[in-house]
Amino acid sequence: MTAYWCERAWLGPGEVTAGVIVTIEGSRITGVTTSEVVPDGAFRLAGLTIPGFANCHSHAFHRALRGRTQRETGSFWTWRETMYAAAERLDPDTYYSLALATYQEMVLAGYTAVGEFHYLHHNPDGTPYDDPNAMGLALIAAATAAGIRITLLDTCYLSAGFGAAPEGVQRRFSDGDAASWAERVANFATGQPAKDEHVRIGAAIHSVRAVPRPDLSTVAKALPDAPVHIHLSEQVAENDACMQRHGLTPTQLLAEEGVLDARLSAVHATHLSASDRAALGAAHAYACFCPTTERDLADGVGPAAELLGDGAHLTLGSDSHAVIDPFEEMRAVELDARLATQQRGHLRAADLLIAGTSAGHASLGFDDAGRIAVGCWADLLTIDDQSPRTAGTGAGEETVVFAAATGDIRHVVAGGRRVDLDPAGVGGRLGRAIAGLEAW
Amino acid sequence: MTAYWCERAWLGPGEVTAGVIVTIEGSRITGVTTSEVVPDGAFRLAGLTIPGFANCHSHAFHRALRGRTQRETGSFWTWRETMYAAAERLDPDTYYSLALATYQEMVLAGYTAVGEFHYLHHNPDGTPYDDPNAMGLALIAAATAAGIRITLLDTCYLSAGFGAAPEGVQRRFSDGDAASWAERVANFATGQPAKDEHVRIGAAIHSVRAVPRPDLSTVAKALPDAPVHIHLSEQVAENDACMQRHGLTPTQLLAEEGVLDARLSAVHATHLSASDRAALGAAHAYACFCPTTERDLADGVGPAAELLGDGAHLTLGSDSHAVIDPFEEMRAVELDARLATQQRGHLRAADLLIAGTSAGHASLGFDDAGRIAVGCWADLLTIDDQSPRTAGTGAGEETVVFAAATGDIRHVVAGGRRVDLDPAGVGGRLGRAIAGLEAW
Repeated sequence: MTAYWCERAWLGPGEVTAGVIVTIEGSRITGVTTSEVVPDGAFRLAGLTIPGFANCHSHAFHRALRGRTQRETGSFWTWRETMYAAAERLDPDTYYSLALATYQEMVLAGYTAVGEFHYLHHNPDGTPYDDPNAMGLALIAAATAAGIRITLLDTCYLSAGFGAAPEGVQRRFSDGDAASWAERVANFATGQPAKDEHVRIGAAIHSVRAVPRPDLSTVAKALPDAPVHIHLSEQVAENDACMQRHGLTPTQLLAEEGVLDARLSAVHATHLSASDRAALGAAHAYACFCPTTERDLADGVGPAAELLGDGAHLTLGSDSHAVIDPFEEMRAVELDARLATQQRGHLRAADLLIAGTSAGHASLGFDDAGRIAVGCWADLLTIDDQSPRTAGTGAGEETVVFAAATGDIRHVVAGGRRVDLDPAGVGGRLGRAIAGLEAW
Repeated sequence: MTAYWCERAWLGPGEVTAGVIVTIEGSRITGVTTSEVVPDGAFRLAGLTIPGFANCHSHAFHRALRGRTQRETGSFWTWRETMYAAAERLDPDTYYSLALATYQEMVLAGYTAVGEFHYLHHNPDGTPYDDPNAMGLALIAAATAAGIRITLLDTCYLSAGFGAAPEGVQRRFSDGDAASWAERVANFATGQPAKDEHVRIGAAIHSVRAVPRPDLSTVAKALPDAPVHIHLSEQVAENDACMQRHGLTPTQLLAEEGVLDARLSAVHATHLSASDRAALGAAHAYACFCPTTERDLADGVGPAAELLGDGAHLTLGSDSHAVIDPFEEMRAVELDARLATQQRGHLRAADLLIAGTSAGHASLGFDDAGRIAVGCWADLLTIDDQSPRTAGTGAGEETVVFAAATGDIRHVVAGGRRVDLDPAGVGGRLGRAIAGLEAW
């Protein structure tokens, strides 16, 4: 048993409590009590302790793009060419190295779980590796080594647009047909790596462009109890193409095909009609916003407060890893809504903390995480609330959401283990992994 | 003489150079040469060294608002009430304490000069202090103690709206009439404190709402060679009221009154017509964007790339200090333009670095700052370009603008002096200064 004494801890909306003792056995919290004094043998966490964050949408290899997609002023095509150039160069070994370093950056930033939206399955020519899940296994091994829980969202990608065959590097993404995808994933989900309590296998539909209509339910049903994620209505062009093909919005298409339920995470959910929002809300689905990526890719600003009001859950992801900073993701939801509406005050700081923690973990299949409560995963993140950035800001929920930055993190406990990573070592590993991709 | 050896240094657009020796005498750079080896006696700056940033628009007392204006979801009025509550409580001593800590936070974040838009002049009942510039002097003393250059932009504020008398705390802002403002400022600008090479006195018009039309040129002419700043077209309501009163946009009004010239910084410049932009461009005026505040206050997104294209200079400020982070200010200009247009690629990273450095310093009256060049102010900022955030991003301009955060700053040299501030001490000072305002 390990005991931590938190100077202040966030125990839920409105509940910042002084002097909280958290006891941990193995990976779980076994006690939460209060005390004005630090008990003998307890480790003192000075500052404000919150649950670890969930990064609900990650493409680990996009970390190689950071700082490289702006050449001159950059365009969408600059970004896409650079992304495909990275995707072409990876094999299971090099992807392990890059993902390990990227997941370590996440842990240093306070994420204790990641949802990896994984579609880089096969050899560059599209043939399977000897183990057809070699790339997914590399990602799981990287997460395990980094000390972050992973939900490997194995992604079905069959066409490059409505009805267009995969070309070039896209051949790496495709299993040929939905049945082949499902067979591979079924083996993956029942194999040894998935038995680790830190690992979940989930399913993902790349998008309504990349999976033909009849196959949508095949993907959703492949793993009946697991999370299902999809890129949804990120850009207006996708909506237009879907409407032209099916006479339905992407959300309506999912509803028609029985995919819209409480397991679903609609990633981005940027360009929605009022009835799309109502449908996502009625299903109590998750809307996974990735605001720093949505800024980078010029997607626009989604209706976060409206989705919450309609009954959906909000979650957050760093997606392309333009930055890895859960504090910026949280506040960006509110701040970008302000820019879009020229009005302040859409979401409470508590709403954004829930999105970053408990709702996020639940959307990855970890219902028992993201809260400092008995029985939950022992993920603790301690923020210096007296730093130059955070001092004088009230040491409450607003301090975490609107003032803090990753530089204010003092301690991370992930799954019961105290994180002891050297930032310089992580930087060096990232530098080598990205330099190793050549021809940048 | 002091010598620094920079592992890499940014010497201008496109010019990241390895092995740069910068020699300094007093406050100025006296030599810039290259060498592969570190000379004897030189201090090694590992990473990427750039010039110090200029924070061109600051209301120092707003630092007390951080984390406190979001109650529940917050609104514009929550913000304004909290801001006025802070403004009511300050006197020269308490303002010195708060400004010292705030300017120290700026120095730690890489700012080496600040433009303080100062309108909190008088006693709470509107009567002058024994020294009518007591509050301005407190700000100058705070900047001097913090080691940051200051341009004290003494701000004329005469009415609370077009024709409305100042009320409540606004009485602190007003000198009664423009002649009284000009007389006070003339004494200020010729007094002893303004003779310090680290200090400039500039003039500011609070806004076209707060200074009647006939007085605009009085303010602009008061200090003929000094910078002139103004809040301009931050919100649509100001434009509408100006048009109703004068039949002119705020920019047109300034042009008519002879205030629109190359000394002028138009702060915010958010809601401009094409002809407003052309007029600011033709005058080669500065447009000072404050994107993190414009997000917080829901102002909207100004036309940065268009203003640059029209001939204006772009500069940056942290304004209300919702955050103090020059990296976030730089990238926010580009990222918010992407959100507003749903298109990538408006500004080059180099454009944003110039805005943050040389253009910014020039707009504060320091033409000889913001460049690593002989004769310039010796302001050096060294960024760890191999950190978890910055590693693998190319160690170039994009690394600084799109990847770095204040946590990556390794060394600051401000006006020739190496900064040796303890962050915990700065945090403590901020906490005490803000707690001391009572009734928060």
